[in-house]
Amino acid sequence: MKKLVHGGDIYSKRNLPENLKLIDFSANINPLGMPEGVKKAIINSVDDFCNYPDPLCRELKKEISVYLKVPESYLFCGNGAADVIHRIASAIRPEKVLLTAPTFSEYEQAVKLLGSDVEYYYLTKEKNFKIHIDILDKITSDIKVMFLCNPNNPTGVLTDKEMVLRIGEKCKSTKTILVVDECFMDFLDNPQMYSIIDRLGTYNNIIVLKAFTKIYAMAGIRLGYGICSDINIIEGLHKAGQPWNVSVVAQKCGIAALKEIDYVNKTREVIKNNRIFLKNSLIKLGFEVVNSQANYILFRTELKSLPHELEKFGILIRSCSNYKGLDETYFRIAVKLKEDNEYLVNCIKKILSPLH
Amino acid sequence: MKKLVHGGDIYSKRNLPENLKLIDFSANINPLGMPEGVKKAIINSVDDFCNYPDPLCRELKKEISVYLKVPESYLFCGNGAADVIHRIASAIRPEKVLLTAPTFSEYEQAVKLLGSDVEYYYLTKEKNFKIHIDILDKITSDIKVMFLCNPNNPTGVLTDKEMVLRIGEKCKSTKTILVVDECFMDFLDNPQMYSIIDRLGTYNNIIVLKAFTKIYAMAGIRLGYGICSDINIIEGLHKAGQPWNVSVVAQKCGIAALKEIDYVNKTREVIKNNRIFLKNSLIKLGFEVVNSQANYILFRTELKSLPHELEKFGILIRSCSNYKGLDETYFRIAVKLKEDNEYLVNCIKKILSPLH
Repeated sequence: MKKLVHGGDIYSKRNLPENLKLIDFSANINPLGMPEGVKKAIINSVDDFCNYPDPLCRELKKEISVYLKVPESYLFCGNGAADVIHRIASAIRPEKVLLTAPTFSEYEQAVKLLGSDVEYYYLTKEKNFKIHIDILDKITSDIKVMFLCNPNNPTGVLTDKEMVLRIGEKCKSTKTILVVDECFMDFLDNPQMYSIIDRLGTYNNIIVLKAFTKIYAMAGIRLGYGICSDINIIEGLHKAGQPWNVSVVAQKCGIAALKEIDYVNKTREVIKNNRIFLKNSLIKLGFEVVNSQANYILFRTELKSLPHELEKFGILIRSCSNYKGLDETYFRIAVKLKEDNEYLVNCIKKILSPLH
Repeated sequence: MKKLVHGGDIYSKRNLPENLKLIDFSANINPLGMPEGVKKAIINSVDDFCNYPDPLCRELKKEISVYLKVPESYLFCGNGAADVIHRIASAIRPEKVLLTAPTFSEYEQAVKLLGSDVEYYYLTKEKNFKIHIDILDKITSDIKVMFLCNPNNPTGVLTDKEMVLRIGEKCKSTKTILVVDECFMDFLDNPQMYSIIDRLGTYNNIIVLKAFTKIYAMAGIRLGYGICSDINIIEGLHKAGQPWNVSVVAQKCGIAALKEIDYVNKTREVIKNNRIFLKNSLIKLGFEVVNSQANYILFRTELKSLPHELEKFGILIRSCSNYKGLDETYFRIAVKLKEDNEYLVNCIKKILSPLH
């Protein structure tokens, strides 16, 4: 059976104590749940689901275009951001790719399928997992594609807009396509301070990735997109797979989600407060906590059995042992609602207690 | 803008006469619409759509396994059958591929993306678009993959089970993977007489494709699958793309759809009667009508403006000018419900009338 390498596996059989609900801290999904407006859109559109989807996602792209203030021609929609990542790999077929380590593992999966060689820029604990200016030296003319996740997954660490644009500039000079994954950007307190979407007009070598999956808790619906001012790249993404990749359900949900302004504002408030609570609690518990600005937190402890111990309390967390640059002492948790977060902290306290 | 090459494009702007509903004969979807049980499954599962889907589709595969009497290990689920087709191309990367002409164009699209050369076995009007024994001569050891659509799209012509198995046997000797697309098989009066699913245990070089899209009118949900007894091929399909390709919506709908036994029986009855009506009517109108056994009909007429004329009545049909082996005198229509079919026939009568 294929090995599951990502978080969010709530489907594998587990020996949970009786009557214990599974609480999933392993997937980074908005803890407010799917907005009511999106649920309503699904129920009201049920009779449209018999039709093939629009392969060009025209109505959805029109709405995204207004929402982000980018031309419709810059947009390509996918069956989740993962579809867009795989299409980028397939359309460009880069011989050599630059990744940070650690980062979201699907970039490497996608490019290795196409036989790419991968170079790594290592992010280290000593440097707080931040990208420094020496990354520019790694961008050479043989690097055809570079992926930069901002905020990075699984660290939650941000790269300043200025630094991203310097990387974009260097990539321009080496004819490298820079993919900036902003899938978790919407959870930040001030996304506009970090997002480079407003600069895409002058950088036609940059593709920005965005997802509805996380911020609107639509992971089971699947909807993501790429933004790029180079029409040839957008055309290449269209050609790199089947035409009906985005379901009618996803297109309808996307259109409804973009209207949920209050929901997004509330999300930012909830995430901010609960992230602070969780980080402080984990530090008090003696763990090494990375300075995340996102809706998830990376921490380190020698207690390698932590996921196993937490499962007994019905809690799933993400072991980071399969991230390049991390090991089995690193764990990632999603920021969830107050009650769940407190339950997690209390469970860890119990596990750490000498009487346990 | 990317050109739309398939049927079912109900989204492009058209100058329809006022108050005229669009009737889409260009996509081959079950005219009964999505079963009520599937609609209910969507509405009842809305709260599960925030979670990532199970990448292994375990619950769905269990149900398909029972339904088709094949082991779960034979199954790979996709974001529509088109996803499975593209993954086959991507996993095998065949240097040379054998296709019939005409056939569903997505096979060629998928393999050409990977740079495959394509050989054609031409199906001709003179031979009633049937596959004959001389196809075996085209299967040589340099052909790595062969696609066989049964019933064929867009002709609706069947290939006997015995012939399919002879082709499978020849493919075995040349180490060719044979992909038998049975996506429209469920619309036949007697699918079990033609489907080779019961023989897959002895042919590990055959992949059968199936879809929920058409028979359950779930085209906007996207769900298809491949069946193969070679575990390495199934594993290859998993690796050939993103892990979350099948949405939670599609997995829930698939499980609900398999319970719709009466719906499928009713579909066969409706399709049979209406196919006979449409074929007879088209023949009476002086068109050359191919002997379809499926839920769509291919016909030929010198009236090349027919789709354009029918649009004025709010009717979409599929021009087959972009099918290799056909030209702009061929058209495909779906078999729909009595009222729609009669409306279509009456509209064509009006168009053909000298007073028109």
